[in-house]
Amino acid sequence: MAGNSFGTVFRVSTFGESHGPAVGCVIDGCPAGLSLSVEDLERDLARRRPGGEGPAATGRNEADRPEILSGVFEGKTLGTPIAILIRNTGQRPADYGDLRELYRPGHADWTWEAKYGFRDYRGGGRSSGRETAGRVAAGAVAKRFLAESGIAVRAWSAAVAGIEAPAYGETGFDADEAERNPLRIPGKDAAEKAAAALEALKARGDSAGGIAECLVTGMPAGLGEPVFDKLAALLGRGILSIGACQGIQFGAGFAAAETNGAAHNDSPLLPPSAESAPGADPGRAPFATNNAGGILGGISNGMDIRFRAVFKPTASVALPQKTVDRNGAKRDITVRGRHDVCVVPRAVPVVEAMTALVIADLLLLARCSRL
Amino acid sequence: MAGNSFGTVFRVSTFGESHGPAVGCVIDGCPAGLSLSVEDLERDLARRRPGGEGPAATGRNEADRPEILSGVFEGKTLGTPIAILIRNTGQRPADYGDLRELYRPGHADWTWEAKYGFRDYRGGGRSSGRETAGRVAAGAVAKRFLAESGIAVRAWSAAVAGIEAPAYGETGFDADEAERNPLRIPGKDAAEKAAAALEALKARGDSAGGIAECLVTGMPAGLGEPVFDKLAALLGRGILSIGACQGIQFGAGFAAAETNGAAHNDSPLLPPSAESAPGADPGRAPFATNNAGGILGGISNGMDIRFRAVFKPTASVALPQKTVDRNGAKRDITVRGRHDVCVVPRAVPVVEAMTALVIADLLLLARCSRL
Amino acid sequence: MAGNSFGTVFRVSTFGESHGPAVGCVIDGCPAGLSLSVEDLERDLARRRPGGEGPAATGRNEADRPEILSGVFEGKTLGTPIAILIRNTGQRPADYGDLRELYRPGHADWTWEAKYGFRDYRGGGRSSGRETAGRVAAGAVAKRFLAESGIAVRAWSAAVAGIEAPAYGETGFDADEAERNPLRIPGKDAAEKAAAALEALKARGDSAGGIAECLVTGMPAGLGEPVFDKLAALLGRGILSIGACQGIQFGAGFAAAETNGAAHNDSPLLPPSAESAPGADPGRAPFATNNAGGILGGISNGMDIRFRAVFKPTASVALPQKTVDRNGAKRDITVRGRHDVCVVPRAVPVVEAMTALVIADLLLLARCSRL
Amino acid sequence: MAGNSFGTVFRVSTFGESHGPAVGCVIDGCPAGLSLSVEDLERDLARRRPGGEGPAATGRNEADRPEILSGVFEGKTLGTPIAILIRNTGQRPADYGDLRELYRPGHADWTWEAKYGFRDYRGGGRSSGRETAGRVAAGAVAKRFLAESGIAVRAWSAAVAGIEAPAYGETGFDADEAERNPLRIPGKDAAEKAAAALEALKARGDSAGGIAECLVTGMPAGLGEPVFDKLAALLGRGILSIGACQGIQFGAGFAAAETNGAAHNDSPLLPPSAESAPGADPGRAPFATNNAGGILGGISNGMDIRFRAVFKPTASVALPQKTVDRNGAKRDITVRGRHDVCVVPRAVPVVEAMTALVIADLLLLARCSRL
Repeated sequence: MAGNSFGTVFRVSTFGESHGPAVGCVIDGCPAGLSLSVEDLERDLARRRPGGEGPAATGRNEADRPEILSGVFEGKTLGTPIAILIRNTGQRPADYGDLRELYRPGHADWTWEAKYGFRDYRGGGRSSGRETAGRVAAGAVAKRFLAESGIAVRAWSAAVAGIEAPAYGETGFDADEAERNPLRIPGKDAAEKAAAALEALKARGDSAGGIAECLVTGMPAGLGEPVFDKLAALLGRGILSIGACQGIQFGAGFAAAETNGAAHNDSPLLPPSAESAPGADPGRAPFATNNAGGILGGISNGMDIRFRAVFKPTASVALPQKTVDRNGAKRDITVRGRHDVCVVPRAVPVVEAMTALVIADLLLLARCSRL
Repeated sequence: MAGNSFGTVFRVSTFGESHGPAVGCVIDGCPAGLSLSVEDLERDLARRRPGGEGPAATGRNEADRPEILSGVFEGKTLGTPIAILIRNTGQRPADYGDLRELYRPGHADWTWEAKYGFRDYRGGGRSSGRETAGRVAAGAVAKRFLAESGIAVRAWSAAVAGIEAPAYGETGFDADEAERNPLRIPGKDAAEKAAAALEALKARGDSAGGIAECLVTGMPAGLGEPVFDKLAALLGRGILSIGACQGIQFGAGFAAAETNGAAHNDSPLLPPSAESAPGADPGRAPFATNNAGGILGGISNGMDIRFRAVFKPTASVALPQKTVDRNGAKRDITVRGRHDVCVVPRAVPVVEAMTALVIADLLLLARCSRL
Repeated sequence: MAGNSFGTVFRVSTFGESHGPAVGCVIDGCPAGLSLSVEDLERDLARRRPGGEGPAATGRNEADRPEILSGVFEGKTLGTPIAILIRNTGQRPADYGDLRELYRPGHADWTWEAKYGFRDYRGGGRSSGRETAGRVAAGAVAKRFLAESGIAVRAWSAAVAGIEAPAYGETGFDADEAERNPLRIPGKDAAEKAAAALEALKARGDSAGGIAECLVTGMPAGLGEPVFDKLAALLGRGILSIGACQGIQFGAGFAAAETNGAAHNDSPLLPPSAESAPGADPGRAPFATNNAGGILGGISNGMDIRFRAVFKPTASVALPQKTVDRNGAKRDITVRGRHDVCVVPRAVPVVEAMTALVIADLLLLARCSRL
Repeated sequence: MAGNSFGTVFRVSTFGESHGPAVGCVIDGCPAGLSLSVEDLERDLARRRPGGEGPAATGRNEADRPEILSGVFEGKTLGTPIAILIRNTGQRPADYGDLRELYRPGHADWTWEAKYGFRDYRGGGRSSGRETAGRVAAGAVAKRFLAESGIAVRAWSAAVAGIEAPAYGETGFDADEAERNPLRIPGKDAAEKAAAALEALKARGDSAGGIAECLVTGMPAGLGEPVFDKLAALLGRGILSIGACQGIQFGAGFAAAETNGAAHNDSPLLPPSAESAPGADPGRAPFATNNAGGILGGISNGMDIRFRAVFKPTASVALPQKTVDRNGAKRDITVRGRHDVCVVPRAVPVVEAMTALVIADLLLLARCSRL
């Protein structure tokens, strides 16, 4: 249990290094009887995949054909572990040869070597973004499971390179547009501005940070376990476990530091038992406002879950940087290879995957809450 | 495993409702041979305890005398579970009688009832801040363990009611002052301004949010497990599991969304193996900057760990609010009783406790990383 | 997680040394809404308690008054951790003073010191049978939960000091008698013979081994998880975790080594879906025979669960034995104090407790098996 | 976490159905720096593999070529998950077509359908012995890890079809012979007698049970966690999780029921601290006898670990048996296909694998026992 598993009942383990034979995952605890096919996995894997299609992209073309090795029989889950295999193809190990002796600034090279005594220097090994393919495949299974209960998870880029997308619920916000442009920005103008900003950064060899936003609709009330497995705590762990993520905030988030209780408190409109089926009647929201982001006392309150996560700029930049080699000698380093200028667009499906995994797990655990 | 345990090897379970007989914790996995006494627990319990001493305080006077029930023999830990009991005293159940039928806005009353079908309506039951006494006791044990390795965890109030404390490392920052004033603000002027702001809010029956900041010094490199148990992920879970916490950010945090890679990347100054003993030689920091907050790729890099957590305004306000009763009838509610105007000062020792628990666990797990 | 917790969803942690302030347990994951009182715990604690009442007894009179510290409100479980405290009383530390330097043969003194570097030498500390009080209290809660589903767990002494009790289902077997005589033997004649055998052993300072048998009725089909959490595997862990237990066998057990498949196989009489409610119609047993002890492929088949566990003779004997001291010098040792001549009668409620804990956990997990 | 994972720090998850694309495992927590190659896995996989070579064999020829998908770089483990893939080949699904509607007596068909609502009827799906290939691959990694500490795990067939092998330590016992004959019996005469007995059973379409015995040498003292994770408890869970296992006993086992304490107790010869390096000096055994099977109070005492496990007769017999179909109609069934007459010889490497996994995990956990 060295950190490669996630969840209590609906539990995923991932494996794989970026330049080894394969990456993938094993899901233990997915209930029997769920319809599942390879196609269910391919859409999200395609969204995560680096393509040649836009200003944030890496140029690395990964095929990412998943194979379901177990756990599905005649199109339905058996209740046994679902193992999913994604072969690594298109590695160019020669790209990374000079990294054997140097530590890339902002990367995990140095810390992995501090921890394990040596490291797979080829493209970051397991610390590569490639690792998230296994998460996204598992998340696609979790989304299928959640869909049976009417729960949908959707994320987008809320800010890229300092360009803010239209805010959710305001004029100009267009969720469909977020799936049309490669930056996953829910607004055409903002997407064009951000693309231009990234092109400029790319031209001078630099990179950008940004913010992903996530929305979960159709949430039943009552999900989340008390104390350490609060819904926000598990989402926090899940999202902060994505490489390059440096923070997360729910609902009003850091702005809550400057508000007062009378303004911030969300007031109930319905008693818990009278709550309508989630999504059935949008006019019957159980609370008057949603400053809490859908969570009170660590438990979902039937409102949409909302949070934002910040991602630092891509660590791989083409500009020369200072570092040291294994002997401690000062060296200059210029990181070559195919890298996103901003990780947020490709982090979007990973954010969705982690969110779906958390909620699938809590949905099953909730079956055990009452006599 | 319904969410009341935390950690893999150094693992704490807490128990207790605010108005039941007791709260407490059981720590499983604390190594044998650690010196431990009741006095080690009492200091942090006193810091967490609501007192009569200042503008943020509740007026409720809890004695919080911990009793070590097991796991310590002749002043040393046995390697067996350390059970710590803290009796609840000074409850005034009559204060809460009218809450049997109403759901306090911003509180967990509604969601707990949605989850479990009924609830302990007396003072929030297990969703009360009282629950954190068990965490603080466990955290004090973890701190004792970390001290053997030269690791120290310290937190303070970075912002209260919109008043910012002097920033860490800048003129006016005074860590000792943070322990002298009841608001835990590291600067006398800011503490006085914040106190005045809280008095004004208290006078009109409202409350305030704020920000806690945490610093871990003496950190060895190499702590943190890959993928799901990254150091930031586990800290994120731990801190977001504290009631009223709505967000966390590490190092540069949300500001990283607007920076570029060349500026944000922390560059190594030393190879991993040449890293000096933490704290031994402050001139030999392993990295040139610390925008990452001491964590790269989920693993500590030998720099100080730094993060900030935001807490929403206290939900209990004396102003009249809208709610519903168990039958769905609209009702006004005015929450009486003894409540903090801002939870941040008392959250400070809880933030320290959760941080110490995470790092103690990872310090033990790191013993298993290499052959 | 150093071995003091048991279960996945219905999870118990125990704590306490025999001569420390208290022993007890915390149950996390008991569903909300279960009626529970101190009286539910006291019956089994009394059955486990050493009394002055018979030939197997220790002479140590432990009051064992449990206190429920949390998790129960107005007579019902809240869904929060149920902490149970049992103060240690009646210790006579002076009895154990000479054991500081010597290792009792057959005891854990030597191995605990090998593991932890030092030990609580007073009465075995945490390796004492006293530790099982926490298990029995937790098991009583699990039994209450199982009773809601019509599942009953009952154990007895099947053999004591070489005297075999009447076999279950055969003439002379009397389950009620097992609760009347202090040896828990289901047959008056066997009980008297065993009592005489124990008196003789006690007179010459020796001790005896024996066998406990357990029966679970009202079992639904479908409990048990595949591969590593098979029903027999979890029961095996639970029962072999009881001190002095050296083996367990299910159904035909070791005799299965000498049978053939055609004779051993249990044949279905009903399809899974037609299986009647457990216990509702004894004439509608789902299988023709029960050589498997109620478990096929690790999953309950709706027949009664049956197993036997062997316990070695009490290690504390009054006869002189050889040992060494902490310096390696050869020494004679005569273990004084109050000890059972045979542990089986008092192990009976512990066997029931571990069995109930396993089945309660699997009953909850089974809620997650299907869509 | 539906039962497909095993271990706390050195943790294995397995996946795969007998007639799906593949079986395999993921090991999380194997320390970095261990030399590991595919060849290390192949020997034990070959021992587990059904061959055409003898009277116990199935006739099914599985190639079992393992592929290491991750976790190994330049011949050494990285500290990341080691995923191992074994493709299923040589399935003949047509063999199993008539089992869609019928439940084989003694098999898991009925119980899996009771649990999940439907099942993979092809060759037992995940309840097939095929599932153990993943365990054996993981066990081979654990054995490599244990070898670094001088610990060796070896098992053999102690009884097959009622024929007893020579007892360990007595005349005629020949561990090398156990690896020469396909029945894994440590004595040539007994192997020939057992082979003849199995041939006779095969000829009449019946099957046999038997007993596997396991020996662990080079054990350090101090392995095993108190209370629920006692060494015998974890081994009990591991071994009883193997299909067809109906019991386990340690050291004197069930015979302990009829001995007395003075005869049964193992007396220390050396203090814990003077214990010589395991295996270094066979003359310096730490205890005078080993009736406990190497475990006292749940913790290893530096003597060899010894236990026996009983396996029921192969459930698949060619004789006609009674069963029912999915509609409840009585039916006769004759199970065709390739089946072992006795499972014990092929269970031997699985017993070794589970034992190695338990001890590897406890060896790592022991690093956390002391300050």
